[in-house]
This record gives sequence, C-alpha cells and structure tokens, in this order.
Amino acid sequence: MPDAYAMISEEESASGLGAAFRAVRDRTLALTAGLGPEDMVVQSMPDTSPTKWHLAHTSWFFEHFILIPLGGGKMWRPGWDYLFNSYYEALGPRHPRPARGLLTRPPLAEVLAWRAHIDSAMEDLLTRDNSPELTALTLLGLSHEQQHQELLLTDIKHLLAQNPLRPLAATAPRGTIPSLGWIDHPGGLMEVGCRSGGFAFDNEGPRHHVWLAPFQIADRPVCNGEWLRFMADGGYSTPSLWLSDGWARAQAEGWEAPLYWYQGEDDRWWTFTLEGCRPVDPAEPVCHVSQFEADAFARWAGTRLPTEAEWETAMQHRFNPGPAFGSAIRRHPFSMNGADAGGQVWEWTASAYLPYPAYRPAEGAIGEYNGKFMSGQMVLRGASIATPPGHSRPSYRNFFPPHARWQFSGLRVARDA
Amino acid sequence: MPDAYAMISEEESASGLGAAFRAVRDRTLALTAGLGPEDMVVQSMPDTSPTKWHLAHTSWFFEHFILIPLGGGKMWRPGWDYLFNSYYEALGPRHPRPARGLLTRPPLAEVLAWRAHIDSAMEDLLTRDNSPELTALTLLGLSHEQQHQELLLTDIKHLLAQNPLRPLAATAPRGTIPSLGWIDHPGGLMEVGCRSGGFAFDNEGPRHHVWLAPFQIADRPVCNGEWLRFMADGGYSTPSLWLSDGWARAQAEGWEAPLYWYQGEDDRWWTFTLEGCRPVDPAEPVCHVSQFEADAFARWAGTRLPTEAEWETAMQHRFNPGPAFGSAIRRHPFSMNGADAGGQVWEWTASAYLPYPAYRPAEGAIGEYNGKFMSGQMVLRGASIATPPGHSRPSYRNFFPPHARWQFSGLRVARDA
Amino acid sequence: MPDAYAMISEEESASGLGAAFRAVRDRTLALTAGLGPEDMVVQSMPDTSPTKWHLAHTSWFFEHFILIPLGGGKMWRPGWDYLFNSYYEALGPRHPRPARGLLTRPPLAEVLAWRAHIDSAMEDLLTRDNSPELTALTLLGLSHEQQHQELLLTDIKHLLAQNPLRPLAATAPRGTIPSLGWIDHPGGLMEVGCRSGGFAFDNEGPRHHVWLAPFQIADRPVCNGEWLRFMADGGYSTPSLWLSDGWARAQAEGWEAPLYWYQGEDDRWWTFTLEGCRPVDPAEPVCHVSQFEADAFARWAGTRLPTEAEWETAMQHRFNPGPAFGSAIRRHPFSMNGADAGGQVWEWTASAYLPYPAYRPAEGAIGEYNGKFMSGQMVLRGASIATPPGHSRPSYRNFFPPHARWQFSGLRVARDA
Amino acid sequence: MPDAYAMISEEESASGLGAAFRAVRDRTLALTAGLGPEDMVVQSMPDTSPTKWHLAHTSWFFEHFILIPLGGGKMWRPGWDYLFNSYYEALGPRHPRPARGLLTRPPLAEVLAWRAHIDSAMEDLLTRDNSPELTALTLLGLSHEQQHQELLLTDIKHLLAQNPLRPLAATAPRGTIPSLGWIDHPGGLMEVGCRSGGFAFDNEGPRHHVWLAPFQIADRPVCNGEWLRFMADGGYSTPSLWLSDGWARAQAEGWEAPLYWYQGEDDRWWTFTLEGCRPVDPAEPVCHVSQFEADAFARWAGTRLPTEAEWETAMQHRFNPGPAFGSAIRRHPFSMNGADAGGQVWEWTASAYLPYPAYRPAEGAIGEYNGKFMSGQMVLRGASIATPPGHSRPSYRNFFPPHARWQFSGLRVARDA
Repeated sequence: MPDAYAMISEEESASGLGAAFRAVRDRTLALTAGLGPEDMVVQSMPDTSPTKWHLAHTSWFFEHFILIPLGGGKMWRPGWDYLFNSYYEALGPRHPRPARGLLTRPPLAEVLAWRAHIDSAMEDLLTRDNSPELTALTLLGLSHEQQHQELLLTDIKHLLAQNPLRPLAATAPRGTIPSLGWIDHPGGLMEVGCRSGGFAFDNEGPRHHVWLAPFQIADRPVCNGEWLRFMADGGYSTPSLWLSDGWARAQAEGWEAPLYWYQGEDDRWWTFTLEGCRPVDPAEPVCHVSQFEADAFARWAGTRLPTEAEWETAMQHRFNPGPAFGSAIRRHPFSMNGADAGGQVWEWTASAYLPYPAYRPAEGAIGEYNGKFMSGQMVLRGASIATPPGHSRPSYRNFFPPHARWQFSGLRVARDA
Repeated sequence: MPDAYAMISEEESASGLGAAFRAVRDRTLALTAGLGPEDMVVQSMPDTSPTKWHLAHTSWFFEHFILIPLGGGKMWRPGWDYLFNSYYEALGPRHPRPARGLLTRPPLAEVLAWRAHIDSAMEDLLTRDNSPELTALTLLGLSHEQQHQELLLTDIKHLLAQNPLRPLAATAPRGTIPSLGWIDHPGGLMEVGCRSGGFAFDNEGPRHHVWLAPFQIADRPVCNGEWLRFMADGGYSTPSLWLSDGWARAQAEGWEAPLYWYQGEDDRWWTFTLEGCRPVDPAEPVCHVSQFEADAFARWAGTRLPTEAEWETAMQHRFNPGPAFGSAIRRHPFSMNGADAGGQVWEWTASAYLPYPAYRPAEGAIGEYNGKFMSGQMVLRGASIATPPGHSRPSYRNFFPPHARWQFSGLRVARDA
Repeated sequence: MPDAYAMISEEESASGLGAAFRAVRDRTLALTAGLGPEDMVVQSMPDTSPTKWHLAHTSWFFEHFILIPLGGGKMWRPGWDYLFNSYYEALGPRHPRPARGLLTRPPLAEVLAWRAHIDSAMEDLLTRDNSPELTALTLLGLSHEQQHQELLLTDIKHLLAQNPLRPLAATAPRGTIPSLGWIDHPGGLMEVGCRSGGFAFDNEGPRHHVWLAPFQIADRPVCNGEWLRFMADGGYSTPSLWLSDGWARAQAEGWEAPLYWYQGEDDRWWTFTLEGCRPVDPAEPVCHVSQFEADAFARWAGTRLPTEAEWETAMQHRFNPGPAFGSAIRRHPFSMNGADAGGQVWEWTASAYLPYPAYRPAEGAIGEYNGKFMSGQMVLRGASIATPPGHSRPSYRNFFPPHARWQFSGLRVARDA
Repeated sequence: MPDAYAMISEEESASGLGAAFRAVRDRTLALTAGLGPEDMVVQSMPDTSPTKWHLAHTSWFFEHFILIPLGGGKMWRPGWDYLFNSYYEALGPRHPRPARGLLTRPPLAEVLAWRAHIDSAMEDLLTRDNSPELTALTLLGLSHEQQHQELLLTDIKHLLAQNPLRPLAATAPRGTIPSLGWIDHPGGLMEVGCRSGGFAFDNEGPRHHVWLAPFQIADRPVCNGEWLRFMADGGYSTPSLWLSDGWARAQAEGWEAPLYWYQGEDDRWWTFTLEGCRPVDPAEPVCHVSQFEADAFARWAGTRLPTEAEWETAMQHRFNPGPAFGSAIRRHPFSMNGADAGGQVWEWTASAYLPYPAYRPAEGAIGEYNGKFMSGQMVLRGASIATPPGHSRPSYRNFFPPHARWQFSGLRVARDA
C-alpha cells in the first residue's frame, strides 16, 4: 500500500486505509515546505484561501464528519467549527469566505497541533473500526483533502504572484511546438460516468447513455507556442472570436495573455512559476487560461472545445495521470512529449456543470458537497501537475466558473468528423 | 394572409410577406397604447431598454441589414447607427447599454417618423424584389421585432412597477389549484431541433439525435396556489432546497416571493400587473420567477426541471400557443384551464444554453445574433402571454441568466419514470 | 414691484409679495422652454434631478410648509408627499433620490396642473393673510424655488451633454485673456454675515467678527485662456499641485480639462453649452471646474483661493450680479469685460462649509434646510449666469462637495499681502 | 536626556539626539510584544496597515530622507523603495495602499534585520554629523515614527477585533459618571499655532491671530456613562441630531454604539480591548467614536464641539499628556479622575483641517507630509493613551475623516458663553 492511488482502489482493506490516510495527510504538510507563517495566513482574493485555512479546514472535515459522529473524539476547541466550516449551510453560520485571511489566530502552530491530534485520533479509530461507513467517509475525507492539496498550490501561487519583487529562475532551454495528431471517434450510443467499485464522487454518476455524433479530438493539449500565434494574430482583440460574456470580462480585466504571463524588458513573454519567473516555453501546454479564452482560441483555430462526454469517451483508455506532484510541482511549467495523454493541465470542456440523469445528492450536510454548485460553472476534465497522485480518473468532473484562471487550466481541441 | 403566424409559414410568398411586415410593425406600435412620452424614454435597470429605444432599434435592424445593403435606402440620420445598434461588435462602437435611458433625444416624434419612413421603404422594396435573400432577411427582421415586442412589454412592466403609486385593478374572482396529470414518455433515441421549411432561428438547429431515459412531465405549469404552499413551507428560507448561487442571490436581494408580489395591508399576497394591482390568484400559472426559484420549487416538490430535450420531445405535439397578446396582455395574470398546454408563461428548463452539435453561426455581423450568448444562461421553452401570435414553436429556445425574473417566466415539473 | 429682487427687499408689503410670487413661479416655467417631456423626466446621475421633479418639488414646498399648515388648502394627491419630499427626515420616509428618474408618472401634464393649482391657492392666501409668518415662509419658499431654478439649469445641461449627438452652435468670435488687477485689503477685525432686514438664509448669520491678515484678491475670475496655459503646463498631470483627495479623484475619473470640454477633430478644445457646442473662448471665465481643480490652479499660479471671509470683505461693495438669467442662459459661455466684478460663475473658496459662531437651525423640519449639510462641503461665493436675478447677495453661501463640477463654478485667486 | 520628550526639547544637543533616536526606535519594537508573524502581516481594511509594514516604512523614512541624501548609506535592497513608500508622489510609483497586506515577503525577519541596520547607520551618522539639517530631519523622522507607533496600535487593535474568537479579560470594577465642570473663556483676539523653538510639524504654524467670542469648555471628556444615556435616549435613531452625511453613514454601516462595543448575552455592553473583552465602564472616557457621532452627541446634550482655536486657547496651560503608552496601552479602556486634563483620547473638534494663514509646505517630497491632506478631514486635538510620551503638545493637529472610528477618538463639549 505505498501510494495514495492504491488507497482508493477496489481491493483496499481497512488496514491499508490507515496507511493511505497517513500518506495523504503527510503530503499536505509536505506541500508547505518553503512557506513562512506570513505566507500561510494571507488571502490574496476572495476566491482563494490561506494555506493555514486549508490545513485547518481539512482537519475539521475529519473531526466534524467522522470523529465526532462515530465516537472518535470531541471538538478540539470551541468556536473552531465556526471558523473552519467551508460552505455547509446545514451546519449553521460560518466565518465569511472573503474574511478567511483576517484569521491571524489561531496561529499556525496551534493549527499544526490540531492536525497532529486529528491524525492520531483517526488512526486510532481506523484500527478499532472497519465498518463500511467509516471506510466510505474516510475515503471521502481523503479525496476532499486531495482536492485541497491542489487548491493550496493554486492559491499560494496566486498570492506569491502578487508580490512586486519577482525572483528569476534559472532559464530552461526553450522547446518548439510538438506535432499534433487527431484521434477519430465514430460516435453512437455510448456510456459515461463512474462504474461501481472504487471511490468516486457522487457527481460522477449515475453511469448513463449518451448519443454522440462522430468527432475528432487532438492527441495533446494546446501548447504555448500555439497560444503565442493566437496572440500575435489578434486573438485578444478580435471580438468575433469570443462569447459575449467572455469578451466583456476580457475587456473589464484587461486580458492580453494567460494569467501570470508578463512582458519582460526584453519584450519576450515571461511567466511566474512557484520556482521563480522564466521565459514562456513554446513546447509546454498552455496553462492558467479561462474557459472564455479556451473557447476563443478553439474558434480561432477552426475547432471547438470537446463536450465532457466526448472527452471521457475518447480519453478513458488513454488517460493515465501517473505520478504527478511532489518535487515536480515547483517546476511548472513543464514540457510535453509527443505521447502526452493529459494530466499536466486540467482541460476545459464545452459542457456546463449539470447533474447527470437521475442524480440525487446524499442526505444531510454531506449532500452539499457537489450538488449545490451545479449552476454557472463549466466542466474541466483530466488532471494537472498539481493534482495529487491517484486523485483523478477518466470520469472525474472538475468545475469552475468560465472566467476562472488561477487553476492549472488549459485545453484540448476537438472538431466534428 | 391576415395574421403574422401565416407570415412565417412555409407557403408564404413575397407578396404575403408585405402584409405580414405591415401586421408585425403595426402590432409593435399598438403595444404602446396608453403610454406617454415619459414612460417611453426611461430605463428602469441596465437589463431593460426604454420603449422608445425598442421602437428605434427594430427600425434600425431593417435599415442596417436590409435597406442599405439591398439598395432600398440610405441612413436616415447620421449618428443613429451608433445610438441604436444593440450589441453587434462587428459594426463598431455603440452607445452603452446601461445609458440607453439617457437618450432623451431624438424625441419620440422623430423615432416615429423614422419608423414610418422605414415601413414605406421596406414595403416598396418588397414590391420590387422577391429574391430569397430579401425574404430570409425580412423574416429574420420580423422575428427579431417580435422578440422585441415581448421585451417591450416585460420592460415597461418593470418600469411601471417601480412607481410607488400603485393603482388597484378591479378584483377578479379567485380560483383554486387545478388538478395535475403526468405525461409519460418512454425515452430512447429521439430527434430534436428545428426541421427545414418554415422560419427558425439558427440556434434551433441543426436537428440532431439525443438519448433520453424514460421520464414523466406535468400536463400544466406550476400554479400560484402551489407556489403559496412552497412559501408557507419555508421554501425561501431553507438553503438545502437551493443551488449555492441561487441561495446567495436570494439572500442578497431579499427574495421571499416572485417578482412583483407584495403583501397588502390585509396580509394577502398581491401582484402588480399592467392593469393594476390584484390579489394573487391560486389558479393562475406562477410567473416572474427565476430559474433558481424554479429549481428550488421543483426540489421541494420532489421533482425536477425537465431538460430542454425532454420538454421538446414531450410537448411538440401538444404545444399550441394559439392567439396570445393583444387585449389580453394587460390582464396578466390570467387563469389556466385543465387543458392548458403551455403558452402563458415561458418554462425554465434544467438545460444550459449551449450550441447544438455541429452548430455554426452565420458569417458577418448577423452571426452575432444568437451564438455569442451561449454562456451563463439557461433555456426557457414555450411562450408567454406576451409572446406575439405565431412567434413561437416547439423548437424555440429562449434564454436568460438563471437569476432573471422580469420575464414572464414560470415552470413545469418533471421526474424520472 | 416688477422684479424678484424687489421681492426680497426690506420694504416689501404683502401685496407686493403676490407679484413677486407670480414672477418667480413664472420664471421657473419659462426655463423649460424648448424641453420636451422626454427631456424633463430623465435623471442623468444620482446628484441631479429631473426637470419634472424640480417643478413638482418646488410646488410641494409651498403646499407642505405653507398651504396646509396655514389653512390654504389640502394635499392635492395622496402619495405625492412621499414622491416629492427632497430630504426632510422629520417628515418621514420619501422616494430615494437616485430613483427620481424612474417616476414617469405622474406625467408632466399632471405636475403642471398641480403647479397651477398651487399658484392660485397661494395667491388667494396672500390676498387674505398678511401675517409676518406667511411673509417669512413665502420668502423662504421663493428663495428655495430660485435655488431650484439654478439647479434645473445645471441638471438639464448635464443630461443633454450625455447625448452623443452634439449639435454645433454658430461659432462666436474668440477673445483674448483680459488684463488682471489686484484689490488690496489691509485686514484687521472685520464683520461678516448677513445684516438684519431683507431676506437671507439662516446659514448666512449670525453676523460676527473675524480677524483677517492683509491680503490681495484678483479683480476678475480666472479665464479660459489662463486655464489653457495651466493645462499646457501639465496642470492635470503634476501631483505636487494637487490635494491628495483631488489627485485621487482626478485620476479615477480621468480629468484632463473642465467638465463639458472635449477636443475636436481640429485638435482645438470645444465646450458643450445649452445652445450647442462651441470652441472654448480664452476671454471667458473658466466654468465647470471642481474645488480640487480650482485649488490646483491657484497653486500653479503661485496664488491661493480666498477664504469666504476674505471674499465677502473684499467684494461686498463690488458685487452686483445685475440682470442674469433669461435669454442669456442658453448662451453660456459668455464674455468678461474688464470691469467684471463677479456674477457669471460661482467662485470656489478655501473655506469648508461650517456653521458660523452661535448658529442655530430653526425648529422642526424647516431646520433641516441648511444646517445638516455642514460637513464635507466647500463654500462658493458670488453668483452665476444661471442664478436668478435678485437671488444672490455678498453674504450668500453656496456649497458643494469639492469634487462637484456640474455647477457653473469657477474661481478667483488671492494671495497674502 | 533619558526620555523622548526631552528629545524634542529646545536645548537638545546632537549627542542627546542619539539617545532619543534609540529610545523611540526601541519603543516601536516593544509595542509588538505578544504579536506573532501572522498578526504582523495581515491588513484588516484599506485604511489600516500591517504591523510589519509600519516597521518597514518607518525605517524606509530614515533611509530615504536622511541616510542616502546625507551620505549615511545606500539602499538596503532594490525594490523596497517601491514597497515601503507610503504616499510620496514625488518619489514615483509605489505599492498600492490596499495591497500592503499581500506583501508576505520580505518576511518579518528580514524587515527586523533592516531595522537593525538602519539603527546602526543612523547612530553612526549622528555621531559624525551635528549639522542643523541632520538634526531637523532626524527630529522629523522620530516624530513620524511616533505617529506610526500610535497607528500601529490602532491598526493591530482593528485586526484582532475581526477575530470571532473573543477572549474575556478579568472584569474590572465599574465606576460611575464623574462630575463635570465648565472652563470659562472671555474670548477676544487670541494667538494660536506653534511658537518657534522646539519641534513642531509644519501644519501647526504659522502662529497667527484669531478672534474668539466668549465660550465655555468642559473640564473633562465625555464619558461612557454619558454615552450610554445618549444611546438609551435614541441617539442613534434620531436623524435630527445628525449631520446629513453622518446619518447616511450611520445607516449604511448600522452604527448603534461606538466601534468595538457589542452587546453580551447578559444584555450589557461590552468592549473589545487589546487585553480582551470587558464590560463598558461608565467612568471612562468614551472612545472609538467618529466625528459624526461626537457631533450628534454634542447636539443631543445641548452643546457643541469646540473649534480647534477654542480648544487650543483653553487647554494650552492645562494640557499635560504625561506618561502614556507602555504597559498601560493594553489596558484601554482606563479610568478618568476628576483632575483629568485630556491625553487619554483624541478629542474631535468642529474645525475642518485646513491650512493656517500664510502656511507654505516645504519644498520637495517632504512637502507632501501634511499639506496635501488638507481636504475632507476634521481636526482632533490632545493625545490618547496610545500616543507616545512626549509626542503631543497644545498646538498639535491630528486629523482624520469625520467617519473614522478606529482611532482612540473621543470628544469634549463646549458652548457659547
């Protein structure tokens, strides 16, 4: 049971779950290496959360939904329920999201002590209890924590990028645009959605039929070199390429390149990464673009975004995110090789995030996990360099509003056959 | 050829088109009866437009897209292009939408003179030219004008409702909740979208296959009596019934009933209509609710909203909006009878407004008509009491953001079979 | 008793007051010549009010504060109290100021009928009753109406300037910068504030002592030619000339010239007037500048703004606004001659609008007239081309926030002796 | 020369200045005792600054205005000029004020290292150089740092008060309302403003004449017990007591008590202090009220706020702030004794913050220190418990916008004799 991917496999036993628990929890802390207490308390915009809050909220999830109801412990500190509930209306009032960055107290040290306490209480409980209910809730809690691992990285990147003092990274060799191939699919009556066995979020099911017309989908994501051509061809100043809402947003916020790109004194495009600033590499997948930008690019290229059903159908036997994360995370951007099958950037689709046919959320507060966000968001598929190993799968539905750019989000184009 | 519904029928000849043109244009003016110049110039919120602007913009459409390119005339006044272009980016800069209400000049009288001029130039051109291009563009222009007829009514209603002086209408007899039946549908591989022959907007096609699971759909829209039960049962104060964005919007704007409803000194619910204020009638279809409210209601009722494919499939042989509009418009609300098959309120669906497979917008500025709005909006199907006769059809896709309430919008519930 | 100046003179009898009443009321209506109902209902920003509202509110003042309490009549229409109260908290809730432009009803014709009714009721009352109370309240009501005459002009100018269709006026001959002289004042213990006898607003008193150091004040306002030099010398882009709040406002709103100025295709500066657009005339007093701009100009010129005590002391025997208004109003801008002693533009001072020593507002709602605005505003002295004849005097204190520009506001510089 | 008050005395030599420098700088650091790095980096609203920023900015002031121009050193780190310039436009672009809380880097440790470096460089320079220019600039830098000492305390108090976890302090005995006496002043021609000799800010001069009418001023500030009576008498819900802007602000922000007061479950009023939450003590001076509230209170009490000239004239021989600060600071609120002559809370006046006659700001960037803020602010006189020992004097002019509440601000009433 050495890695977290096995953790969510079908055969997993309760004892293996304890090892998985430890691995996921440790990995969260490992991601904070190099950050000081100042870095971990500040909130850079209402959409992001401080690192310290992520550390606390993921512990709260275990305490609130597992330890207290299943007899594994009591509330650690009065009032923390209020501070670290993210959005569960059923649990009563909570600290307003845009004010998470005002919580200088409890200080980091106390939050870390709480984490240690939760870890030990959970491990103790997992030793004593191997009920299906505990297993299911623990898997949910770990998957939830893995989602926050990615958010922790996107959020800290956004914060550090606000600092006007920009360190330069050692400049890497620059690549060229890799070749592009098309995957053909004949369409027809297909099945999509998660199968039974193995963990999946509720929004990935029920598995159901969809009818697809024949289509083609690219064998790799769009790369920076292609994006630079789009920019050079006036992509950001040609309204006919854009959806109306996208154009309005791009004008209001002055978009002229992906988030974190800026023009250096040498007139080249540079990008801010967690390792410092580096020239944009044409060979790497474009990242930190909104769905609005992705849609405009696809139109410019004479293509379109795939629907989520097309993506899942075409990619389900090709998608293998493999070992991501870890030391690699600080090195984003990163290069593609010709055999890339995704997993470096989340890929925007043309699909709105809506419930699958016959979808029903769970009863109680846990039912607020996914269902209540099914409005105003678009689906992303795949995984990114910031996604924890083992956390994604072909049926995984990530979702963000179409203007969101601070995630590790890119695109793959498609076209009618 | 006496009515506009014939206008958009298949067999229509170019000479019939002239009569249809006159009928549609006259009907627009007829809708302004009872309005003074003050009522026609003010804009009540950024989403609405002044009546005078609707009168001018619909004329501009014929001048700009037909008369000038097809040799039927010149620009009437310099600068009016800038004032009365609605949203066509391809045509250059235009007057900002939220500032339409600042255009006290040209005064109403000049706009009416322009309308008369356009009418006569168009009728002249239709006599001389029976090319398919002119026919197609004229049908588009008339359908466009019919859309604005409905908007003119929704917008003037919104404006007049802002006035704190509320006239009382003669009180109508109050009905009771009509009985509700369910229409069964076995699902399977279905075809949806407009067929060739007859006018349809580009967003209604291409016709294509969808796979549907078996479902049931109600045989009438939700009525006020049912909505009052939802309210009495805490519908507006129970977050678990609501989508997250919907709940946030309802709290921010203090929703506790449909738009235009208010509680009288007698504690009963009243509603503002274009004929004055009247008690809410339990027998009438609920109107002026957002998609967020419709979705919450459906969840409360143990049902759901239908998808647009379900709606179209189930309703295509039952939908017959019949003679709407005219004198009836000022009398909204209105009663349902048991045989109601829609057509009194637009019905929110569970579907995001997205392009159909293989959809392509037209070339040029006219291509901005529908395609560029395919983001952030939800589909409504059917027609309302404010829809011009002959303007709707089973494949018609109306669309608004999920929080919009000032349209004549209600709902019909569905459920899995 | 033919003119309104006599109206507010000491000797005025009650019968003379009737003639003055008629003269002031008629003049208000005369100012609306050339405006259509559309022009009179729209509100161009929250600070301005529609013409129709001005017409109604000035009638409401007579009805509410005179006719009803003194037995001259009843409320004309129920609910109008709510609509046309401007800001008197003591009178209960009222229609929100930024929503005055949504009141398309009552229509203009009804407001005019109300005015006629009020006029006749007031004239009747003035014939029957010559009590000092009625005289005092009528003088207040007429002075109030005169204030609204000026606001009506500034507000309609602001509205018409929003229209992108800009008519050109016949171009007037352009003058040159007139010569400037300095008036010397030795300072010392002076008296300022209104004297007893004759009408004055409560904020002009009590008359009191101030100590002034010796100073000099210019013998004419700053003119456009001087302002163009300030602009050419980088006045709008040199932060050291500006107060901090002024600089922030200028940047936020992109100020680079007075309000209503714009650069024509011929690169010259033009200005919008109520008669159409004309080239800026160097000989005319600069107008439509904020106190922030006036202060920056004075600093640039090596001078300063006068305090209100300096202005009143130096100007009290030189100030004679003379016949303003009437046909001249539509011709603003206007020329200065060498002997100008003010009265064409209001002149910003360096003084905050604060109560004079021992100032006490009147009891009751009428006490809200002036006192409650003594925060955040700066004093202007003099009069403008839009000020009604006879309405101003040397002790008159006009006041607006330092960023306000839509008044007919200029400046006169001063310096230490 | 042991204390900082001597530091700013007339006789002070350059060697004494070194001791004063060390004392002031050390005191700043002492104020941060008990704060963690998280507390010191977060910004609670745009008006406040993080503690770390205060620590850095006060060092920047010495580096930029003294060490670099007078040959005492070079810039410590490139880019920090941009980060830690507060508002000097003459020095070029700077980090936006509302984004100071996003500067997680440089971390606290680096800022502290910089402080140590600046201290040693300044002490070295003061040993070598005893020019009047160095003395004057050092005195300015120290006075500037003392101002930031008070701001550091007000800002950290505001931040910690945002935390929903409210610690309770040991409850102190509660006092009663102390007796109130009136100080009589006959008025006449008075002199105000700083005298030559001793340090003073430029805005405290030039010394000049003012004419005062006879007046009375209270012999102590208003206390909490009196404020509770104002509240019980509907002070916060009676518009006639308020200035128009004040009423609008109070409604918009829901004021019903001073800032930091809240009603406990025992229905008593409590207040947040830097030592924890405690019941409001009727004997203590009221604190954390805006000028709008102070003005409303004075009107309710049948009094008024004094002008700054009245305050200075009446208090100049009674004002002795004495030893403030230090251990006492965490204990605010605090009690008054009968002999109180001010110095515990800043006292709002009725005077707008405007230049004295013949005031001229210094040349260059340093001239931006006080002059450019002379708009939209009101003067406070005296000193507070958070004011450093020796920092205030009778001519001292503190200033904030009339709605500001997060300073230690109270009031003293006056009335016409």
